[in-house]
Amino acid sequence: MTARTLVKQLAAQPDGPVSVSGWVETVRDQKKVQFVVLRDESGAVQLVHPRTDVEEPGTDPLATAISALSAGTFLTVIGELKHDERVKLGGLEVKIEELEVAAAALDIPIADDSSIDKRLDWRFLDLRRPEQNLVFRVQTTFLHALRTWWVEHDFIEIHTPKLMASASESRAELFEVEYFETKAYLAQSPQFFKQMAQPAGFGKVFEVAPAFRADPSFTSRHATEFISVDAEISWVDSHEDVMAMHEQLLVAGLTAVKEKHGAEIEATFGIEVTVPSLPFPRIPLAEAHRILESRGYTVPRADGDLDPEGERRLAEYVKEQYGHEFVFVTDYASNIRPFYHMRHEGDAGLTNSYDLLFNGVEISTGAQREHRVDVLVEQAKEKGLDPEELGFYLDFFRYGVPPHGGFGMGLNRVTMLLLHQPSIREVTYLFRGPNRLTP
Amino acid sequence: MTARTLVKQLAAQPDGPVSVSGWVETVRDQKKVQFVVLRDESGAVQLVHPRTDVEEPGTDPLATAISALSAGTFLTVIGELKHDERVKLGGLEVKIEELEVAAAALDIPIADDSSIDKRLDWRFLDLRRPEQNLVFRVQTTFLHALRTWWVEHDFIEIHTPKLMASASESRAELFEVEYFETKAYLAQSPQFFKQMAQPAGFGKVFEVAPAFRADPSFTSRHATEFISVDAEISWVDSHEDVMAMHEQLLVAGLTAVKEKHGAEIEATFGIEVTVPSLPFPRIPLAEAHRILESRGYTVPRADGDLDPEGERRLAEYVKEQYGHEFVFVTDYASNIRPFYHMRHEGDAGLTNSYDLLFNGVEISTGAQREHRVDVLVEQAKEKGLDPEELGFYLDFFRYGVPPHGGFGMGLNRVTMLLLHQPSIREVTYLFRGPNRLTP
Repeated sequence: MTARTLVKQLAAQPDGPVSVSGWVETVRDQKKVQFVVLRDESGAVQLVHPRTDVEEPGTDPLATAISALSAGTFLTVIGELKHDERVKLGGLEVKIEELEVAAAALDIPIADDSSIDKRLDWRFLDLRRPEQNLVFRVQTTFLHALRTWWVEHDFIEIHTPKLMASASESRAELFEVEYFETKAYLAQSPQFFKQMAQPAGFGKVFEVAPAFRADPSFTSRHATEFISVDAEISWVDSHEDVMAMHEQLLVAGLTAVKEKHGAEIEATFGIEVTVPSLPFPRIPLAEAHRILESRGYTVPRADGDLDPEGERRLAEYVKEQYGHEFVFVTDYASNIRPFYHMRHEGDAGLTNSYDLLFNGVEISTGAQREHRVDVLVEQAKEKGLDPEELGFYLDFFRYGVPPHGGFGMGLNRVTMLLLHQPSIREVTYLFRGPNRLTP
Repeated sequence: MTARTLVKQLAAQPDGPVSVSGWVETVRDQKKVQFVVLRDESGAVQLVHPRTDVEEPGTDPLATAISALSAGTFLTVIGELKHDERVKLGGLEVKIEELEVAAAALDIPIADDSSIDKRLDWRFLDLRRPEQNLVFRVQTTFLHALRTWWVEHDFIEIHTPKLMASASESRAELFEVEYFETKAYLAQSPQFFKQMAQPAGFGKVFEVAPAFRADPSFTSRHATEFISVDAEISWVDSHEDVMAMHEQLLVAGLTAVKEKHGAEIEATFGIEVTVPSLPFPRIPLAEAHRILESRGYTVPRADGDLDPEGERRLAEYVKEQYGHEFVFVTDYASNIRPFYHMRHEGDAGLTNSYDLLFNGVEISTGAQREHRVDVLVEQAKEKGLDPEELGFYLDFFRYGVPPHGGFGMGLNRVTMLLLHQPSIREVTYLFRGPNRLTP
């Protein structure tokens, strides 16, 4: 591989010969001197070429080559690095000596002010923006910190199948697949299979993988394919044990992001990354409703769940009261929770469950699972499910199983909220929605 | 969460009160004393209860409870830890004081000698075997070391969509999905989308995610859903740069496995994990054929590719000649490579590509990609592909793109070969094949 210097490494290099590779952001083709801004995955640098053909235009082949460069062209430049305080862009420039074009570019069909839909049509060009590059570097760091925390705490990584013979959540939002002589369905979550690790004796497991929902929503926070961050642990006493793991994980993730990208996030997005304090506030759902009422907001839902406006207002309250960006809303009513959530002992109307809100938006649902098979069957029936169809899942509980619990968290939502982005589309590599299956 | 001691931590604990949780492996219900072997995710321990009802059977409630325990029952035991050299199992035992059953177990329907198919029907019970637990802990360690290497080398993690509007490899092995008013296909590999990160200016990317092939094969190394480990890097001069990354990664992965699990792998599977030396041997495909011929084997294939027997024999040769478990077979003929592999300059019959063999089986294909769009279109046509159908992929190359290359590697194959397992089914959490979609 050619000895290439990344743009971000130039500042620490002495004046002298360097080789840089990237793409053309702009060309300023002046009479006496030409400037090219070259960008790579790490930053942008100014390249300069004093024309030698000022007297006789067309006699400087390098000047001719530079004039012909279109924005987006990928190229390698060998030249002389010179530190010079007067250069606005990083206080240095590279005088071009040789220039090799790897691939020329047609005219870029999008601009900074293009609509989100048009930008998604040309996502690979949209991703060249430094903000976008930062989004994915931040997400990489966050996720690696989560996985490192799990590995250090002896979790086993599992890879559950995304092709299933039946639904794991609701049958309504299921994608159907032609599977040889039969039908399969795409996993809406790894719920059943991560729980399977419990009777399998794996103790503590995690998975980060795609999940699929045939959800016709067009909101800023829904996608038909998304990355689900999941963990499940044995021998919990209640959902409290799950929350304790969950909040430690987020602290690990945000600490890593702040350390590695804090300054750049502040410079790029104007956001100061906050490492949350432990423990995160916990507010039972019923209490959340009382708080909202006392602040003049009645949630307009009959089922007792929070609506997005209620979540936003609750987060405001938490921010005022505790100075915290996170809040666990706990003890959801059984009627708005799936059959596999464990219910309170002595009050079957409430569950050992929580939603985690981050900056006013739900990013995760967690719970202790019901592991007593007779209770589980009753709860399934009560939800109108046919225990026959749940056969293989119910078997997980018939041959011995520990008490357990876990959570599922939407990765793209976390990234969106962390970087204050207006839509999940901005933080997804290639968004998939009801109307979007390409590129 | 109850202060639970993992079985593997008992050896370092002083004699005294402990709480252990796990499942019943065996009960020896003797006249004067009862023994239970309890296993958790970290190991097995002997529990003991000297009956107090020897004179008057039925008067010791704890003894009655122990007699009733079925294998597979999950329970928590509080008792007295005592180190005692005479105890074969780890030189210690726990005298039971309290016993709380979390979930009783029906009779376990499989045994160690059950057929692989029956074991897969009851995979969650099969996974309780310590060998299986080790398989997944080894895989966790291996994968985390790979990701750590990438993160330390500034790679960006990407999550490419698994729902696509068209095929990324051959149309033959494609799963079709009902997608709202249209059809989608499951990604056979992240090939097109990881390449997209190159014109997007991401530089170096990796992904670990499921891939799907509607492959009707029933071999020990094929699955319809598998975990694909992928990386793609910019500014390569040839496939040599990809191999250099690939071999360093594997050294990182195997070093971590050897350090963390070497002794246990040796004890459990009788295998000494070898950290391979750098560089791995490289043998051009034509040379591989000459070597096989000289050792009396002519590959019975018309297309010039190796067959499994040829791969096995080549690995034997490499082991003898270089003492190495890996070999890069390089420079495959264009006719057996996809259209997007770059061809040799001056010899379009050969590609800048490789297969990586591990213990005689192919685990990966890597290549430099053709990034010159005119050449790419020609190569696609030559393979009988319609450039119209490849529209969005070809666009990746029309707006500027760096030279690049990468590899895709089957995670389960690596684990299978590392632990000398007879089939990919043994190292997959839940195997998916033409006849297997459950549990």
